[in-house]
Amino acid sequence: MDCIKIFSPATVANVSCGFDVLGFCLDHIGDEMIIKKTKERDIKITKIKGANLPFEVEKNVAGAAALAIYQDAKPDYGFEIEIYKKIKPGSGIGSSSASASGVVFAINQLLGKPYNATQLTQFAMKGEAVASGCEHADNIAPALFGGFTLVKSTQPLEVLSLPTPADLYATIIHPQIEVKTAEARAILPKKVDLQHAIQQWANVGSFVHALHTNDYDLLSESLKDKIVEPYRSKLIPYFDDVKNAAINAGGLGTGISGSGPSIFTLSKDEKTAKNVEKAIQNVYSKTDIKFNTYVCKINTEGIKII
Amino acid sequence: MDCIKIFSPATVANVSCGFDVLGFCLDHIGDEMIIKKTKERDIKITKIKGANLPFEVEKNVAGAAALAIYQDAKPDYGFEIEIYKKIKPGSGIGSSSASASGVVFAINQLLGKPYNATQLTQFAMKGEAVASGCEHADNIAPALFGGFTLVKSTQPLEVLSLPTPADLYATIIHPQIEVKTAEARAILPKKVDLQHAIQQWANVGSFVHALHTNDYDLLSESLKDKIVEPYRSKLIPYFDDVKNAAINAGGLGTGISGSGPSIFTLSKDEKTAKNVEKAIQNVYSKTDIKFNTYVCKINTEGIKII
Repeated sequence: MDCIKIFSPATVANVSCGFDVLGFCLDHIGDEMIIKKTKERDIKITKIKGANLPFEVEKNVAGAAALAIYQDAKPDYGFEIEIYKKIKPGSGIGSSSASASGVVFAINQLLGKPYNATQLTQFAMKGEAVASGCEHADNIAPALFGGFTLVKSTQPLEVLSLPTPADLYATIIHPQIEVKTAEARAILPKKVDLQHAIQQWANVGSFVHALHTNDYDLLSESLKDKIVEPYRSKLIPYFDDVKNAAINAGGLGTGISGSGPSIFTLSKDEKTAKNVEKAIQNVYSKTDIKFNTYVCKINTEGIKII
Repeated sequence: MDCIKIFSPATVANVSCGFDVLGFCLDHIGDEMIIKKTKERDIKITKIKGANLPFEVEKNVAGAAALAIYQDAKPDYGFEIEIYKKIKPGSGIGSSSASASGVVFAINQLLGKPYNATQLTQFAMKGEAVASGCEHADNIAPALFGGFTLVKSTQPLEVLSLPTPADLYATIIHPQIEVKTAEARAILPKKVDLQHAIQQWANVGSFVHALHTNDYDLLSESLKDKIVEPYRSKLIPYFDDVKNAAINAGGLGTGISGSGPSIFTLSKDEKTAKNVEKAIQNVYSKTDIKFNTYVCKINTEGIKII
C-alpha cells in the first residue's frame, strides 16, 4: 500500500465528570486526510483545505505527529500529507487531535501496522502539544481507540477502552465564538474542595459502571461536574439555557466538550438526540451567535480507512 | 420466625483510591448478633459481650440503627438484641458498621423482608452516626450488599454493587493503637490539588473497570492515593514499612482501612495473601506494638444468617 485515505473523527473530552481523563468518539463529523509514501526520506504537507494552518511540518499538528512516528520507525521512504479539515479549529471537539491521530493512524497502516493504539496515542500527543502547549491524550485516545476511553495516566501512558452502550447518541452544538484552550485552562483553580472532588470520583466510578452495565439512568446521574463546569461555562454564552433545554428534551446529560465552546448532550436513542438538537437550536436561534449542530451515534471504531 | 442469629462482617472503606465512596466486605472476621421478637413494643439490648458498649438504646450504634428501622416499620411487637463483638471498636475495619448493619439486616428478616439493601443502609447509617457523628455509608454498604460497593451519593442514598474478581483475597493487619476517626478526619485538608484529584478519579474509574474485567494488574495500578494516605499514614506507625513488605510479597496494593489503624492489602490468590501476612507480621514483630492479622476471601454475600 503506497497511499491511504482516512476519515479522522471529532471527539468529546472530559465528558462532565471526567475532566482530563474521559473522552468519546463521534461519527460522521471529522476530517479527511490522504497520506502517500514518497521516495524522499522526509515528511511534507502538500495540501491543506478547510482551514488556515501552517505548511511547516514542525509547526503543524499533523506534521509534528507524523515526524514523531516517522523518526521512531525510520523507514527508507517518506510521506506526503494532504489535510482536508472539516472540524473547525478551536471548536472544542478535538480538531487538532483529529489531525494528529489521523496522520499517525495512516502512517502506521502504510508502515504495515507495527504500532498498537497506545503507541500511536503517544506519537499523536507530540502533535497535540503543538496546538495546546502540552501533551494531552483525552481527545486523541477516543479517536484512535473508538468509543469511550479513560486515560488512566499519561506518564507512563495508559489508555483504557471502555464499553459503549449500543443506543447512545450525541448531540453537539458548536457556537461560533472563540474560547482559547489556554484561557480555559488558566481560569481553573489549582485547588478544589475535597467534598467536590469526592463527588467527582464517585461520578467517574459510577459512569464507568454504567457503561459496563448499560444503565442509562445511572449514566445520566453520573454526568455531573462541580469542578470545571462552574468556571468554564461562564465562557460560553447561554450555556445554562442550552443545558436546561437539552435535559428538558430528554437528554441524559449535557456538558462542555473539551474546553468549549462546543456543548455535548448524550441521549439514549436517535429520536431523543434529534429532539435535543431542535431544543438547543431554539435557544441559539434567538441570539446573534452563529452555530452548527450535529447528531451522531457514538463511533466505536474510531478512525476509518475510506 | 421469632429469633435470628447472624454473622455481621468487618469491612474495608476507602480502598486507597476511593476515599468516602469505595468499600469491600471481609469474610470470617465479624460480629455475631441474636435478635428476638418480644411482646413489649420497644427495642432492648439484653447482652453485650466482647466490648464495653452502652446498653442505652439511643447511645448504642446497634440500638440507634434498630430504632430507625423499628420506628419506620411500626410492628406490633418489639426486639431484644444480643451483641457478641468480635471486631474491636476503633480498629478501622467497620466495627460500628457491623453492629448497625447487622441489626437492621436481622430485624428486616424478622419483619418478613419488607426493605431492600439501600433502605437498610439508610437505617444503619443512623446507627453509624452515633459512633462517628455523621452518617456514612462506606462501611455499611459493603456489609449489606457484600463484595465491592460504591456509594455514588448519600443524599439521596445511592449504592452501586460492583463485581468481585473470583480469586481476590485480603490481608489485614490491626495494630492495637488508637486512631480516633474524628482526628483522622480533622487532619485532612479541606482543599486538594486539582492534579491529584484528577489522578484520583482516573484511578477510581480504572478500579471499577478492573473489577468488571477481572484485570488484576489494572486493579494493582489503581490502588493509589495521593489525597488521604499522605496525611493519615503518619498516624499509623511503620505504615510505609508494612506497605513495602506487602508489595514485595506480591500484594496488588496496600492502603489504610477506613481511617485506620488497620491496613489492608489485596492479593490475587490465597497463597500470596498468606505470604503478605507473613511479611507484614515480620515488620510488626520487631516493634513493641501488639497486632492481629487476618487473611480472607472477599465476602460477596455480606451479612449471613447462622
